[in-house]
Amino acid sequence: MSKIKGFSKLSKTEKITWLAKHFLTSNPLDIAREFSSYMHSNAEMQKLFDGISENTLTNFYLPYGVAPNFVINGRTYVVPMVIEESSVVAAAAAGAKYWSDRGGFQAEVISTTKVGHVHFLWRGDADKLFHIFDTELKDALIAEVQHLTANMEARGGGLKSLELIDCTELEPEYFQLKATFETMDAMGANFINSVLEAFAEALTEEVKSHKAFTGAEKHVEVVMSILSNFTPECLVKAWVSCKVSELGAFPEAQLNAQQFARKFSTAVRIAKADPYRATTHNKGIFNGIDAVVLATGNDFRAIEACGHAFAARNGRYESLSECVVEGDTFTFSITVPLAVGTVGGLTKLHPLAKRSLEILGNPGAKELMMIIASVGLAQNFSAVRALVTSGIQKGHMKMHLTNILRHFGASDIEIQSATTYFADKTVSFSNVREYLQNYRANLAPEK
Amino acid sequence: MSKIKGFSKLSKTEKITWLAKHFLTSNPLDIAREFSSYMHSNAEMQKLFDGISENTLTNFYLPYGVAPNFVINGRTYVVPMVIEESSVVAAAAAGAKYWSDRGGFQAEVISTTKVGHVHFLWRGDADKLFHIFDTELKDALIAEVQHLTANMEARGGGLKSLELIDCTELEPEYFQLKATFETMDAMGANFINSVLEAFAEALTEEVKSHKAFTGAEKHVEVVMSILSNFTPECLVKAWVSCKVSELGAFPEAQLNAQQFARKFSTAVRIAKADPYRATTHNKGIFNGIDAVVLATGNDFRAIEACGHAFAARNGRYESLSECVVEGDTFTFSITVPLAVGTVGGLTKLHPLAKRSLEILGNPGAKELMMIIASVGLAQNFSAVRALVTSGIQKGHMKMHLTNILRHFGASDIEIQSATTYFADKTVSFSNVREYLQNYRANLAPEK
Repeated sequence: MSKIKGFSKLSKTEKITWLAKHFLTSNPLDIAREFSSYMHSNAEMQKLFDGISENTLTNFYLPYGVAPNFVINGRTYVVPMVIEESSVVAAAAAGAKYWSDRGGFQAEVISTTKVGHVHFLWRGDADKLFHIFDTELKDALIAEVQHLTANMEARGGGLKSLELIDCTELEPEYFQLKATFETMDAMGANFINSVLEAFAEALTEEVKSHKAFTGAEKHVEVVMSILSNFTPECLVKAWVSCKVSELGAFPEAQLNAQQFARKFSTAVRIAKADPYRATTHNKGIFNGIDAVVLATGNDFRAIEACGHAFAARNGRYESLSECVVEGDTFTFSITVPLAVGTVGGLTKLHPLAKRSLEILGNPGAKELMMIIASVGLAQNFSAVRALVTSGIQKGHMKMHLTNILRHFGASDIEIQSATTYFADKTVSFSNVREYLQNYRANLAPEK
Repeated sequence: MSKIKGFSKLSKTEKITWLAKHFLTSNPLDIAREFSSYMHSNAEMQKLFDGISENTLTNFYLPYGVAPNFVINGRTYVVPMVIEESSVVAAAAAGAKYWSDRGGFQAEVISTTKVGHVHFLWRGDADKLFHIFDTELKDALIAEVQHLTANMEARGGGLKSLELIDCTELEPEYFQLKATFETMDAMGANFINSVLEAFAEALTEEVKSHKAFTGAEKHVEVVMSILSNFTPECLVKAWVSCKVSELGAFPEAQLNAQQFARKFSTAVRIAKADPYRATTHNKGIFNGIDAVVLATGNDFRAIEACGHAFAARNGRYESLSECVVEGDTFTFSITVPLAVGTVGGLTKLHPLAKRSLEILGNPGAKELMMIIASVGLAQNFSAVRALVTSGIQKGHMKMHLTNILRHFGASDIEIQSATTYFADKTVSFSNVREYLQNYRANLAPEK
């Protein structure tokens, strides 16, 4: 267990050799062979993947699948999904199929505003600062970032607003420059951060040289300049709706359409009221959302942080989806902030992200927001439907059964036999192990 | 753009052919070749990856890297990280290195309790229900899941508590059975869900057959039985600490150790007070956390949902980390719920997840919690350090520059030249494009 200097400077082979020597019990050659087996056969292509991150040793495989039959605003999509959890793609596809027979998904982008802040400390007469900001500073600052915003403006976006905020109630001497942006088809992080850092520099200089300020007032201490991943105004809504009677019956749960509608909407209301349930409910939504976010080269940490902070915006952590049964109409909807891009970042750089966008018909950011929100809603529908009818374990464990069997090195014949056996039994690691042991000891067909 | 029935039943080749025909403009053979180029050369191995999800066409590559020099509780780790965002691994490694010279990370697991609920509707005298639960029902329910909990009990875990909760203030007739669990080295989702579904069945039967209940009281309507991803009692804390003077100077930002400590702690306090900043601050923490979660075959949606709901537990979305400068001592800490496993799920099934655990010395779940929390803290330290000193763009755009250059098909010589050129200039997509155009038109060395 040893420390090392200059690790990042080592070649990939040297990195692996050092790692194997100090941290692994397996043979270094076997490790090198294993890592090599996951690399792309085209060395140039592999260089591209290595360039995305640092200290890379190989590629981590995540299954790349698709969910067909997503009808969104009247158009049919096949949605690429990258996810390591079984049954997520199946659930999305099932939800898509179900609603494609009932008018499909509707979606609309509510707004696309991004936001960032220069957080700074300043000591002095706040009224004076606000007066100077309104009359002079604001225009000066906007002019000074013009060289950075020109390109985005040419594409129809740019800076939307610039505001000074007194935050001294949160922290002594604390103020914010809050800027909002329209970044069109880009997620826009680099653009926004560059503009904010320029604002910070300009603010410092302008205040320093302005004759209205004296002494300590001349000193702006910039704490940090950074976009916010909390973008409650980069918001999309998706919904499905049909007559209650069209929901169909669920005989396995002895529910008719009316009973299903009532039970389903109760489950969603519970996820609104109870944070314990809300967390899991939204986790399921993000199973679908993140799978598309990953497949299109977007940043799932940004999407997750924003979505969950948004779920907590009313002072209690709540469900992102909502179900209303009014008269004879069943409506299930989701409202979620999704700051995604279809240009820039990895979206075109990662070959499969680029291919994913092609499969989706090369959408702009707004169309992608609507697709992703619909997938999140489909995922949520399938999960809650399973929960209020057959329970989640039945479907999930069936999917997981094959994984457990493969873990124990089961043959195709053993998998087939076990699948039949467990059709009406509880799947658990130990049950499967026991079954296989018995099967191999007594029941193998060759005996 | 067409709908399809029975897509999941098609072979991989048939799926790709159908997809190419209906949704892609590229040549189907090229698509098939591209997808094939990302598949594992060992067909059995590829079957394993295909079995993890559904409708799989190929594998999506994410860079698999490592961050060395993580000293945690006195032991040195190399931490495997899977992440598609540039500079995350570099920042983790930089944070690890910095603190390895200052005593390393300390970490402790506060608790490891998991939780799940049977959500049900029941109409009747609540006092009677509670009385029967306390005196009879509770023991009967626990006995009826014994066959499911026995194995986990043998491993030292099992059911920890079972509670009846009146939730009728949230929703009419709504009650919960709340169960808590200890799942040892497993994340435990399947175990918990199986037990909860058994509880639901037993509860329904017991209430129906109990002589104390009459009429409508006999009817328990189970809405759903499901674990909660909100596990505020599966909690770990990690921290770093040193004398303020040992923090060193940051000449590039004209900060001495005292000034740095003050500015850094101000930045963290701002992330406590302002949800806009908290979201981005925590997003950075999860850059590190998720990278290890992915590398070890755990479920990042579960970790994200729980972490952010936890960040909102006080009624406002807040930073997960905290910085205290007391006297001459600088302490930076994180407290975060992390329900991860080192057995079950994908942890051993995905060959590289298994290898990741080997690189970490095959830790149990508790040790993995401490490692992940430390990586999250290292990530946060490096991000906030960059923000309050040189700004985030400088480092980030340097990393991103190579990506942009590769996007434009730059040669190694062009990359070298551009790196020198942009050392003191703003990196943006358009600036880099312009630079390359000029370079190629006028400055190419062969001219």
